[in-house]
Amino acid sequence: REEILKVHSKNTPLAKKIKLSYIARGTPGFTGADLENLVNEAALLAARKNRKVVEMEDFESAKDKILMGPERRSMIINDKEKEIIAFHESGHTLLGALLKHTDPIHKVTIIPRGMALGVTQSLPIDDKHNYIKEYWEDMLCMLLGGRVAEELRFKTISTGAKNDIEKATHIAQKMVREWGMSERMGTISVATEKEHVFLGREISQHRDYSEKTAVMIDEEVRKIVEVALSRAKKIIKQNIGLLNKLAKSLLEKEILSTEDINRIVKKKKKKVISKK
Amino acid sequence: REEILKVHSKNTPLAKKIKLSYIARGTPGFTGADLENLVNEAALLAARKNRKVVEMEDFESAKDKILMGPERRSMIINDKEKEIIAFHESGHTLLGALLKHTDPIHKVTIIPRGMALGVTQSLPIDDKHNYIKEYWEDMLCMLLGGRVAEELRFKTISTGAKNDIEKATHIAQKMVREWGMSERMGTISVATEKEHVFLGREISQHRDYSEKTAVMIDEEVRKIVEVALSRAKKIIKQNIGLLNKLAKSLLEKEILSTEDINRIVKKKKKKVISKK
Amino acid sequence: REEILKVHSKNTPLAKKIKLSYIARGTPGFTGADLENLVNEAALLAARKNRKVVEMEDFESAKDKILMGPERRSMIINDKEKEIIAFHESGHTLLGALLKHTDPIHKVTIIPRGMALGVTQSLPIDDKHNYIKEYWEDMLCMLLGGRVAEELRFKTISTGAKNDIEKATHIAQKMVREWGMSERMGTISVATEKEHVFLGREISQHRDYSEKTAVMIDEEVRKIVEVALSRAKKIIKQNIGLLNKLAKSLLEKEILSTEDINRIVKKKKKKVISKK
Amino acid sequence: REEILKVHSKNTPLAKKIKLSYIARGTPGFTGADLENLVNEAALLAARKNRKVVEMEDFESAKDKILMGPERRSMIINDKEKEIIAFHESGHTLLGALLKHTDPIHKVTIIPRGMALGVTQSLPIDDKHNYIKEYWEDMLCMLLGGRVAEELRFKTISTGAKNDIEKATHIAQKMVREWGMSERMGTISVATEKEHVFLGREISQHRDYSEKTAVMIDEEVRKIVEVALSRAKKIIKQNIGLLNKLAKSLLEKEILSTEDINRIVKKKKKKVISKK
Amino acid sequence: REEILKVHSKNTPLAKKIKLSYIARGTPGFTGADLENLVNEAALLAARKNRKVVEMEDFESAKDKILMGPERRSMIINDKEKEIIAFHESGHTLLGALLKHTDPIHKVTIIPRGMALGVTQSLPIDDKHNYIKEYWEDMLCMLLGGRVAEELRFKTISTGAKNDIEKATHIAQKMVREWGMSERMGTISVATEKEHVFLGREISQHRDYSEKTAVMIDEEVRKIVEVALSRAKKIIKQNIGLLNKLAKSLLEKEILSTEDINRIVKKKKKKVISKK
Amino acid sequence: REEILKVHSKNTPLAKKIKLSYIARGTPGFTGADLENLVNEAALLAARKNRKVVEMEDFESAKDKILMGPERRSMIINDKEKEIIAFHESGHTLLGALLKHTDPIHKVTIIPRGMALGVTQSLPIDDKHNYIKEYWEDMLCMLLGGRVAEELRFKTISTGAKNDIEKATHIAQKMVREWGMSERMGTISVATEKEHVFLGREISQHRDYSEKTAVMIDEEVRKIVEVALSRAKKIIKQNIGLLNKLAKSLLEKEILSTEDINRIVKKKKKKVISKK
Repeated sequence: REEILKVHSKNTPLAKKIKLSYIARGTPGFTGADLENLVNEAALLAARKNRKVVEMEDFESAKDKILMGPERRSMIINDKEKEIIAFHESGHTLLGALLKHTDPIHKVTIIPRGMALGVTQSLPIDDKHNYIKEYWEDMLCMLLGGRVAEELRFKTISTGAKNDIEKATHIAQKMVREWGMSERMGTISVATEKEHVFLGREISQHRDYSEKTAVMIDEEVRKIVEVALSRAKKIIKQNIGLLNKLAKSLLEKEILSTEDINRIVKKKKKKVISKK
Repeated sequence: REEILKVHSKNTPLAKKIKLSYIARGTPGFTGADLENLVNEAALLAARKNRKVVEMEDFESAKDKILMGPERRSMIINDKEKEIIAFHESGHTLLGALLKHTDPIHKVTIIPRGMALGVTQSLPIDDKHNYIKEYWEDMLCMLLGGRVAEELRFKTISTGAKNDIEKATHIAQKMVREWGMSERMGTISVATEKEHVFLGREISQHRDYSEKTAVMIDEEVRKIVEVALSRAKKIIKQNIGLLNKLAKSLLEKEILSTEDINRIVKKKKKKVISKK
Repeated sequence: REEILKVHSKNTPLAKKIKLSYIARGTPGFTGADLENLVNEAALLAARKNRKVVEMEDFESAKDKILMGPERRSMIINDKEKEIIAFHESGHTLLGALLKHTDPIHKVTIIPRGMALGVTQSLPIDDKHNYIKEYWEDMLCMLLGGRVAEELRFKTISTGAKNDIEKATHIAQKMVREWGMSERMGTISVATEKEHVFLGREISQHRDYSEKTAVMIDEEVRKIVEVALSRAKKIIKQNIGLLNKLAKSLLEKEILSTEDINRIVKKKKKKVISKK
Repeated sequence: REEILKVHSKNTPLAKKIKLSYIARGTPGFTGADLENLVNEAALLAARKNRKVVEMEDFESAKDKILMGPERRSMIINDKEKEIIAFHESGHTLLGALLKHTDPIHKVTIIPRGMALGVTQSLPIDDKHNYIKEYWEDMLCMLLGGRVAEELRFKTISTGAKNDIEKATHIAQKMVREWGMSERMGTISVATEKEHVFLGREISQHRDYSEKTAVMIDEEVRKIVEVALSRAKKIIKQNIGLLNKLAKSLLEKEILSTEDINRIVKKKKKKVISKK
Repeated sequence: REEILKVHSKNTPLAKKIKLSYIARGTPGFTGADLENLVNEAALLAARKNRKVVEMEDFESAKDKILMGPERRSMIINDKEKEIIAFHESGHTLLGALLKHTDPIHKVTIIPRGMALGVTQSLPIDDKHNYIKEYWEDMLCMLLGGRVAEELRFKTISTGAKNDIEKATHIAQKMVREWGMSERMGTISVATEKEHVFLGREISQHRDYSEKTAVMIDEEVRKIVEVALSRAKKIIKQNIGLLNKLAKSLLEKEILSTEDINRIVKKKKKKVISKK
Repeated sequence: REEILKVHSKNTPLAKKIKLSYIARGTPGFTGADLENLVNEAALLAARKNRKVVEMEDFESAKDKILMGPERRSMIINDKEKEIIAFHESGHTLLGALLKHTDPIHKVTIIPRGMALGVTQSLPIDDKHNYIKEYWEDMLCMLLGGRVAEELRFKTISTGAKNDIEKATHIAQKMVREWGMSERMGTISVATEKEHVFLGREISQHRDYSEKTAVMIDEEVRKIVEVALSRAKKIIKQNIGLLNKLAKSLLEKEILSTEDINRIVKKKKKKVISKK
């Protein structure tokens, strides 16, 4: 990545203290196009602030924009909703900070970005190519943490968790259907519908397995999601004080960095949380 | 929104007493295009009445047209049908006025507008982005209030509730399938058929879940709608006098404003109505 | 409608005794295009008879053509079939005359019109926009009256009821699926297949509900049709003399008007016929 | 029809003894295009035989070609197969001659015509528009008579009955699905798949009824066909001598006319054959 | 056929001893296009061998090419595989020679032809148009003889029987679905999916029968194939010596003619082999 | 193949010691296009190294590129992942070396190639056309060996086995559906969905068999895969020392040849491993 950054920033005046190797390390998973985009966005931001050279701060903003979508500060959100969003994001954040196999949280914000009202953004330390079962179990737990936090705080549930539920279901389905991660299903691949368009024509893929298998898939997916939900509830209840602190801090500052989060969660070492 | 209104009304002569900030507050959920449309319609209406400046009244009519469709005063409806429509709309209105989580009713009318024979129009106080479970439960109750009112008054049911039933079913399905609001289904997302057209070709989405899950969805949807229907029946029966007053008043005036409704329902504070 | 008739007949010389208001009242449900068509057809018929002005009689024929299709007097039908058709249409007519919620019968004929060998045509008194449950129950009864009459008279059934059965099934399905008129199904909307063509491409709508719901729909539809069939049998049996008189009269005159029918059925006031 | 024949034969020199009214009576069900075709074919056949006027015989051949397809005398069929075909066609013919509600048989042949190795052709006496249940029951019986005759004579079954089975299944399905002729199904219309092409695009019609209804349809169709098969077996067994005579005669002459058939079956009056 | 051969060979110099009538008799089932192809291929082969006239031998080779595809002598097949193929083809051949209703075997070869590694080619004595049930039962038995021979000799099964299994399943399905040859299914036609392309658009045919019927079809198809497989096993076991002789001879000569086969199977008259 | 190689290498200067016959023997299953590709790639590689003649080494690299995709040395993989990949590939390799019916392993590498993070490449000794049941059973076992090795070593499972599971499921399905290799299913062919595009239009193939058959297919597929998985576990556990040696060696050298593997597994003769 450092090489790619060098190529793309050849004609961009950078502040002297900027180390491309440091930026490269901070952008695992970025493709070549992402990196080119990153340099351009950073240059643009610097230009907008009438700077002659691109600062590290510009690269940080550019990276956030690529990862989380553009900020939409103009969107009006009333205080009640802001509070709900803060607890929702704090739920994700708390679990991301406590669970053993999740990627570290890069940033959490309640300023609307792209289509979302709030964003909790994780970043892996390294490039990863394979993911173990425990990674996905913790990921599911973190995804459902948003709704759990809302429910524990406000005693009701809202449509705000729609996308989290969709993602969680999708991951659980992959575990059962493609990755052989459900013992009951076995080491079997059961294709989901393909959204492939082939030669300008969609290939509509008909279900190729029995209703009995379909029932088993549904039951296994539901079980995996339910286990993740109970874990999320148990862990957040046990750390309800931290949740409140995170939400409060988020309502004040609107953005929390890894350092902010670690200060609140007291850099307590990640611990494995048993599934039972 | 106020900013957008300013831009679009730059070349429109407004009556002096008009405050754009007031109009902005009264149009939550309006997009930029809606607002431009609003200013144009208001100017047109003023022109039709040979006024030189646009009055508040013109903005009100323009807003109603955008929200509820154009009036169709020429449509002939006999007295019997008019009475049925009045009770139908009063059913919606009464529940909208009594339930805790519904948006306030902006206007109710038995003058045909757009495709509808009568309209009960709610407007949220603020822009909202997420909706809690209780909001939808009350919404379902209000939607079914039209048929309930007809049935209690005329001892029969009609095709007039077709659209209400369709909307209620649609909401209940979203609660069960997408928003994780059925405990029995769990926090699972079960995609409904997409009506997506992709690259000029529809993607026909085949059912991706088991018959057992389909049965559970249908049962949960039915249960949610049934609960809403019984609530609607119970509440209207307990307030049958108010229903009659609303219908009578509606038959006389043809349009009732928030104030008219509040006068009849006596501004009684909204109360939570238990689900059992 | 009277206004529309005035506009379209501006250039058509009408007989002096013709009252457009009378014609307007006799054409509930006619669209603007239908009314234009009506005036043109009447003018044509008058021209064919070398009249200089259009008579009421021409308007009557024009109206019948629009409602029931053109006459096909050239079609050869033997006496046996003619008798069957007469009893079939008399079955519809008798029930249309006796049932409480059906629209009055405008005309009944055994001269082939359009695609049909015989036609029983009802016309509502007023424009209607909503229809109550009892209307559809009586309509189903009347639709099945044709087959019932054939069966009672000739002790066999024929393919002649194909369209009636199709229409009856379609109405019963709407009652169960869209209008919330089956208690067992509940106030739920269960979309039937749409025959929609969208942007030049059909949207093939896959079944979105469970097999269990499909079974319930089928059972409710069947039950509704069965009840209507038994009512039709019971009522026709109790009035078998009237059926024979109607059929005899129809075989003689080939067309019966409302007055002819009322004379036979003795203007006996419509009565509610209990469903049990 | 006589009128149409007159128009089309205006420019065709006919033999003096030809009566168009007689031809008209012998072509029930012929459309205008069929009749034009008939006159042209007859003229062609006369020309091929170097006649100056068209004889009755030419009209007969032309009619057969239109009804049964062109003769294919060049097709080589060995004696064994010829005997099987003769018994197959005699099976149809015998039942056509004995059953009460079938149309009279016009001709039966074992000279290949069109796609068929043999043809048994019925013609109604009059134009018919509706068909009673007993007509279809006898038609099914006659259709299955071909296979029954083969089986009784040769103690085995062949692929020769493929089309008969297809037609019989199709009729039984219509009785159950569209014509309300199965008591268990009731007076219900259950659409079969439509092969409709709409606006240059097929409308693929998905099954709109429950599996439970599908089972009932299949069982009723099977039952109707089974009853017809047993009737066919019973009647042919009781008249096995006539079957043998018909087959023998057919092997000798290759074509039998109504008169030939009646001579063998001894003009015995059609009798009702009980279904039990 | 002789006529067609005459036409096509008008311009082809034939050896004097060639009798077209003999060739005609040896090509039952050949269409006009096949026969034209036959003459052309023969002329080409003669030309390639620098002959001035076409010999009988050229016609034989041309016929084999049309029936079995072109030889692919260049394909390398090791000795082990050659032995397996020899036993596979000998399995087909032995059953073809012993069963009563199969067509006589024209040739069997282990030289790859077209897509196949070996070919056993039958030819009917006469043109046939209908086929009796016993023909298909013996055909199924012969088709499965290849795998049975492999299994008996090598104690394992291979992918080499893939096409035989496909063909056998297809025939059994036709017996059950279209030809009324399963007593349990009855004389019913149950359409299989059509691969029809209509007006440049495929007609996708949805299943039109119940799951219960589908189960019955599958069970009947399976039963028919199982019976054929046991018969094949029983007959080959009883004639294991002949199988070994055929395979040995085939490995030596690579091609066996009808005469070669008859010499080994000792021209023993075909016998009926009971199905139990 | 040697012939084809001669043609394509006519204009390519080869090192003197190169024997095309040796290369031909080392490329079973290569098509003509593959061989042309091989010669071109080898010439290119030689050119890149500034050699005037193509060496055997160039042919080896070219062959690997065609078989396994191009190397992607630039891809960054951390040490933990590298270790997992090494054990995964060693699992495949160990089983490939121990099982009786698998093709010999040509090469195993943990340098990313094409889309894969590691590759274990087998090559048949000869061209093969048919494959026996035991070949597929051992192939399944080897395919699942990757995941088994990961699990035994790291006590967890990862997404790295996704493609292996897909391939294994696909093979097991072919055994059950097309090759008649499941006793319970019988010698029946049950078509899987075809991905055929016909005349520019996909033919969407609907399921043509009963749910009962679908259940049987799924159960048989699952059973076959489960048996293979247990075999893989049992064999690797019994040879855990060899697994560790292979993985260690692979981490050091990154590529192992047949000789390297044989040295570790001590050229122990392949043995049959019982299925129970």
